[in-house]
Amino acid sequence: MDQQSPPALRVGMVGYAFMGAAHSHAWRTAHRFFELPFIPELTAIAGRNRAGVEQAAERMGWKSVETDWRRLIERDDIDLIDICTPGNTHAEIAIAALRAGKHVLCEKPLANSVAEAREMAAVAAEAARNGVFAMCGYSYRRTPALALAKRMVQDGRLGTIRQVRAQYLQDWLTDPNAPLTWRMDKTKSGSGALGDIGAHSIDTAQFVSGLNITGVSALLETFTKERPVGGELVGLGGHGEVTADTPMGPVTVDDAALFTARFDGGAIGIFEATRTALGRKNANRLEVNGTLGSVAFDFEDMNFLQFYDGTDAGDARGFHRIMVTEPVHPYVGNWWPTGHGLGYEHGFTHQVADLVTALGAGTQPTPSFSDALTVQHVLAAVKDSAANNSQWTTIKGQDA
Amino acid sequence: MDQQSPPALRVGMVGYAFMGAAHSHAWRTAHRFFELPFIPELTAIAGRNRAGVEQAAERMGWKSVETDWRRLIERDDIDLIDICTPGNTHAEIAIAALRAGKHVLCEKPLANSVAEAREMAAVAAEAARNGVFAMCGYSYRRTPALALAKRMVQDGRLGTIRQVRAQYLQDWLTDPNAPLTWRMDKTKSGSGALGDIGAHSIDTAQFVSGLNITGVSALLETFTKERPVGGELVGLGGHGEVTADTPMGPVTVDDAALFTARFDGGAIGIFEATRTALGRKNANRLEVNGTLGSVAFDFEDMNFLQFYDGTDAGDARGFHRIMVTEPVHPYVGNWWPTGHGLGYEHGFTHQVADLVTALGAGTQPTPSFSDALTVQHVLAAVKDSAANNSQWTTIKGQDA
Amino acid sequence: MDQQSPPALRVGMVGYAFMGAAHSHAWRTAHRFFELPFIPELTAIAGRNRAGVEQAAERMGWKSVETDWRRLIERDDIDLIDICTPGNTHAEIAIAALRAGKHVLCEKPLANSVAEAREMAAVAAEAARNGVFAMCGYSYRRTPALALAKRMVQDGRLGTIRQVRAQYLQDWLTDPNAPLTWRMDKTKSGSGALGDIGAHSIDTAQFVSGLNITGVSALLETFTKERPVGGELVGLGGHGEVTADTPMGPVTVDDAALFTARFDGGAIGIFEATRTALGRKNANRLEVNGTLGSVAFDFEDMNFLQFYDGTDAGDARGFHRIMVTEPVHPYVGNWWPTGHGLGYEHGFTHQVADLVTALGAGTQPTPSFSDALTVQHVLAAVKDSAANNSQWTTIKGQDA
Amino acid sequence: MDQQSPPALRVGMVGYAFMGAAHSHAWRTAHRFFELPFIPELTAIAGRNRAGVEQAAERMGWKSVETDWRRLIERDDIDLIDICTPGNTHAEIAIAALRAGKHVLCEKPLANSVAEAREMAAVAAEAARNGVFAMCGYSYRRTPALALAKRMVQDGRLGTIRQVRAQYLQDWLTDPNAPLTWRMDKTKSGSGALGDIGAHSIDTAQFVSGLNITGVSALLETFTKERPVGGELVGLGGHGEVTADTPMGPVTVDDAALFTARFDGGAIGIFEATRTALGRKNANRLEVNGTLGSVAFDFEDMNFLQFYDGTDAGDARGFHRIMVTEPVHPYVGNWWPTGHGLGYEHGFTHQVADLVTALGAGTQPTPSFSDALTVQHVLAAVKDSAANNSQWTTIKGQDA
Repeated sequence: MDQQSPPALRVGMVGYAFMGAAHSHAWRTAHRFFELPFIPELTAIAGRNRAGVEQAAERMGWKSVETDWRRLIERDDIDLIDICTPGNTHAEIAIAALRAGKHVLCEKPLANSVAEAREMAAVAAEAARNGVFAMCGYSYRRTPALALAKRMVQDGRLGTIRQVRAQYLQDWLTDPNAPLTWRMDKTKSGSGALGDIGAHSIDTAQFVSGLNITGVSALLETFTKERPVGGELVGLGGHGEVTADTPMGPVTVDDAALFTARFDGGAIGIFEATRTALGRKNANRLEVNGTLGSVAFDFEDMNFLQFYDGTDAGDARGFHRIMVTEPVHPYVGNWWPTGHGLGYEHGFTHQVADLVTALGAGTQPTPSFSDALTVQHVLAAVKDSAANNSQWTTIKGQDA
Repeated sequence: MDQQSPPALRVGMVGYAFMGAAHSHAWRTAHRFFELPFIPELTAIAGRNRAGVEQAAERMGWKSVETDWRRLIERDDIDLIDICTPGNTHAEIAIAALRAGKHVLCEKPLANSVAEAREMAAVAAEAARNGVFAMCGYSYRRTPALALAKRMVQDGRLGTIRQVRAQYLQDWLTDPNAPLTWRMDKTKSGSGALGDIGAHSIDTAQFVSGLNITGVSALLETFTKERPVGGELVGLGGHGEVTADTPMGPVTVDDAALFTARFDGGAIGIFEATRTALGRKNANRLEVNGTLGSVAFDFEDMNFLQFYDGTDAGDARGFHRIMVTEPVHPYVGNWWPTGHGLGYEHGFTHQVADLVTALGAGTQPTPSFSDALTVQHVLAAVKDSAANNSQWTTIKGQDA
Repeated sequence: MDQQSPPALRVGMVGYAFMGAAHSHAWRTAHRFFELPFIPELTAIAGRNRAGVEQAAERMGWKSVETDWRRLIERDDIDLIDICTPGNTHAEIAIAALRAGKHVLCEKPLANSVAEAREMAAVAAEAARNGVFAMCGYSYRRTPALALAKRMVQDGRLGTIRQVRAQYLQDWLTDPNAPLTWRMDKTKSGSGALGDIGAHSIDTAQFVSGLNITGVSALLETFTKERPVGGELVGLGGHGEVTADTPMGPVTVDDAALFTARFDGGAIGIFEATRTALGRKNANRLEVNGTLGSVAFDFEDMNFLQFYDGTDAGDARGFHRIMVTEPVHPYVGNWWPTGHGLGYEHGFTHQVADLVTALGAGTQPTPSFSDALTVQHVLAAVKDSAANNSQWTTIKGQDA
Repeated sequence: MDQQSPPALRVGMVGYAFMGAAHSHAWRTAHRFFELPFIPELTAIAGRNRAGVEQAAERMGWKSVETDWRRLIERDDIDLIDICTPGNTHAEIAIAALRAGKHVLCEKPLANSVAEAREMAAVAAEAARNGVFAMCGYSYRRTPALALAKRMVQDGRLGTIRQVRAQYLQDWLTDPNAPLTWRMDKTKSGSGALGDIGAHSIDTAQFVSGLNITGVSALLETFTKERPVGGELVGLGGHGEVTADTPMGPVTVDDAALFTARFDGGAIGIFEATRTALGRKNANRLEVNGTLGSVAFDFEDMNFLQFYDGTDAGDARGFHRIMVTEPVHPYVGNWWPTGHGLGYEHGFTHQVADLVTALGAGTQPTPSFSDALTVQHVLAAVKDSAANNSQWTTIKGQDA
């Protein structure tokens, strides 16, 4: 039966935690629901701990393991490197992979510094000239409702964009006894809520509005300055009490990041990313107001887009609660009948589908590293402003 | 790496349409997220059209094909038969499979008549004594929010149940030009909205409340008596106009089914299943009111359960909008972090996980065919009542 | 300043409990926000208990009191009798008032029996020929969102109506220790949830859809058969415990009423009225599905109408959440700027405005007693069906 | 009947537009629903246009008129001056009234400058020593849901407050053709969205959290720099086209104001006030996150408070949607039964009830002018920061 099957795209993945699981699912699943030019093959997975990576390979369906990501890049049976590790490792792995002629999918944020990101974008641009492509994993772009929102903006259905409000609200660090992890260690994660979830808001806001942020004024706050070392996250009130004997470590990143922004074209924006908004679990929200219409989204209700159409009959105006599950909507026609919603991991599956489709066509997948670099510029400006009395800080043009 | 892998559970599936795709995904995915005693293997898929079934096998990941389901049952490399065909075929396939010593997973409704269902339940009970098990695919039971609702009822948090209101609202037959399919043909589907989606409401209501329906009064209605033959469903207004030349066929099932009900223990219920509730896409809703608390659910917001706790402080009472994505909730701890919602297909993956777990333990998975027979009794009583001036119609005890 | 003031409409009100307070507010307020042909004057209020009625007059702003409603009717300084007493007294008072040439506003339900209602409608029809008008207080018709819904149906924006679902859910009788009041005494109230709140659903469903109910099948239930005599309603769990010494009295009405219905024109409906839906406070809900559009309403969110417009662009379809506070919407232009919502009592103020406007024009205000009689026919049919094994019961045409 | 009636509180009101109508309703209504120590009497209303003020008096129920507010203050039959005029007039009127021994209710914002507000607070403090009291009309404090939120914070049910997010979103200036009014003229209104609605957010945030803002970083924006002179506000798309002949005038205030904030005690906040958020009508929203709980409110759903209780059972946590209409909630026990919601004007009626109650007790009503001065400090700091590159701007302690 296999004679007409598309050729394989042989994937090597680095990292196997939460993101690794989500990516693995996507690599296994995308070609089951989308017509793709290549069939992804889960060729190898790399991680430093042999027992851990072997167990992950078994669970997630990878055919072989490596304990050094450099080995993945050396292997000639691998076409694409998928980077699911903390941000401080992205630049080295991605640059090595691209230089070795491997396509790259790199988790967000692209890097922990503008300097790294700029170099990554430069290397990616060079590679692209040779048909080797890099993409950054801002997977929320592939949420059908947000893809629909972008299409509506592009089609002019919102008129001129005036205001953007983005919130990304979580609550898992509300409890001061929640343990320290790499996500609270600046050397690994670069920043806290800002880079982890605020980066998504920045990318999504720019993606949906089609506008770039040109300046910001920011405030960062860390409510809990040190946390217990060790232990698992189990939710508010579920952690053991911290005693005099509990080993503690410093939190070196922000719990919450607030900033105002201006976009090119005259729009203004307001952003909040936080891990201490008790009761909000994954409220990745975006609202865009134009002169003709508005859209509003909350990832906690990910199958819906709210759309206010200023051209509706006067007595019928109100946000349309669009259940984004119709064949006419982005991505969803490949899944289930109308009204049968999708979940978190579908964004990753769509990401793989879009990436593989672009590779098949020999075109640059988006967001490119250059696109992701614009997010890095904003992240850096936010940190600079916060460190400088919230002074207005201009985003320099992307120069990669 | 495979030496510690669990043994395979070799699956043969009959049918490859919408349900086949959902089941295939579940068979491929369950062991990636749940610790299972067997690893499902997609051994063979059967369908009458060779080209169609081969294409489906390729797309869905099945290793071999058959064009006659009887061949699946004859094969000794198959442990379980998964039945995803219209209801008129369930009894024959399931009974043959069970008698051949194959476990069975059968889509709902169990059958198109009580007589068939009763025979199926009897054969299943006999098989179970030999360690061969049958389960009916009322997959909504595995929606985490509904599993949580059931647990709350079981734990007494609602007190004595008094009222149940169930709605299953869809709108895909609003357009009189939508084409005729097997789902509107009584000989294949048994009934319309009643058996297709009302059956889910009946099962879910009984499952969550822990109570059986004892009597009903019903009304069935078919708004559009004949429909064009051929064509695809494309949503309201998207169908070609029906002209004098359009070949038409009779709709022999209900568009909408309404009924009132009594449950054992004194509770009352009200049910509606319809395919003509314009604007409602897959609003599978259930509310249960007890003397101490209430729960409410809508599948269009499947990651949430509304819970009213009558024991909350007096000024703080109000439905809790529980985002059912915490480790403490059923199923979801195996997926993503808090706040990262699931989609439609997860119910099927959970169904496979529960089924395979039960098979590993040698215990009866639920809902058994006997459980599913209780739904058939209700469906039959609804039809009887509707045909008899809505006269109150008692449900006879399940006697298989 | 008063020379151009409109003449007074001198009102005499019978009853001064909850409804009396709401009506008094409306009589005091309507001419402050609506241009009316008469200025209501709160001339006299009647109640049997002198101290009680005097206190009510003081509090509510009535100029004089009577301890016998007959005196109100005898007074020649009164133009209109407003009846806010339990249903068993409506017929006698209304008929006497109309025969004395007083206009009448009568609370709903119109009466406790079809026979009374029929006589009231006949007397009202006779009076109308002499320019004396009667109106029944189905005040929810004056909720702006429901008035908008009706207008949309009338304008054809829903197409052909197919389905109606109405729920009126309250929870104040969930607690079996809540005390007995006249509302649980059949001789005074006629029925329980059915007549108290189900009557609103029936009127609203007929009003919005523009269709009459032609038949029903029903089930009534009383969960708590006797209740403590005396005591105040204070919400779930707030009542004293019932002991062997607590004087108890029988509940002679329904706690919950469920029925299915058919409307003229082929639509079907499903209705529920209950006082034991724990957590639902005043969920007076109506949804109407047509072939082109749908509307949905919940009085707990009274300032909103949900409208699904099947003619919206394919990718933008979804219920519009219309905040019904724009000048283009019914009634609200007379109040506050856009977005500043109204409350429960505004329905009564609008009712007074509409009534006084009709009286000024010498036209029949609606709903007339004949309109209200159609509700009585349905209420009676519901009781008959429930008493007769839920057998389908046809509504006889209105014959007053 | 009147011998036991409380004495009158004779009110003179200045201004009779939107706010005048709301205040008049409150003065007429408060004693009908609340037990008050004085009965408000609508003694006189002042406005410069005799015809206009006479018509207003007739419509709103005022007994006499003046065409100069100074006359109101001179009259010895007036006990209280209610100031409903634009902000540039507040200081002069309020100071004159207080010095004349009249109580004062002054609409918000207290003044158009800190200097004026500081003087007003000083005069009010002096008057209070003589039993003459002044109050500022931040009426949203009297929304039952917000009063409940404050009580919950005070009772410690939220733990330590960490984050505040406030939005006040309207859309009536989205249309660039909407006409110029005094609200867009800085000399009269002081500022635009900032002072009109942002002031409410500041007061509400401080009121509910119990914390004062200590510093801000801000951005102001005016999207439409000039607007047609004349014409009425009629909503998006309803205005005539602007042509070369249309007389235009400059907009001298902000359309939108964004700022971040710090509160004493370590909490941070983010604020947005805008009149160009298309589709948002009166979305006065506040969310407060603490270490134990959170509350969230939106005035478009004014009868509800969302409350997340971190001490709920682990599987039952979720925002409680509290319908704030129970006797146990602030204010609402004086109105209708449970579930029968209130509207916009009730805040003003509660304001009158609280004010009159405080006057009866001889105690300072809140918010005092000193309380309102803290809002002025924040407004001034926002303007300063916005004019100074969003630089962090500290709020000086209130020194009146």
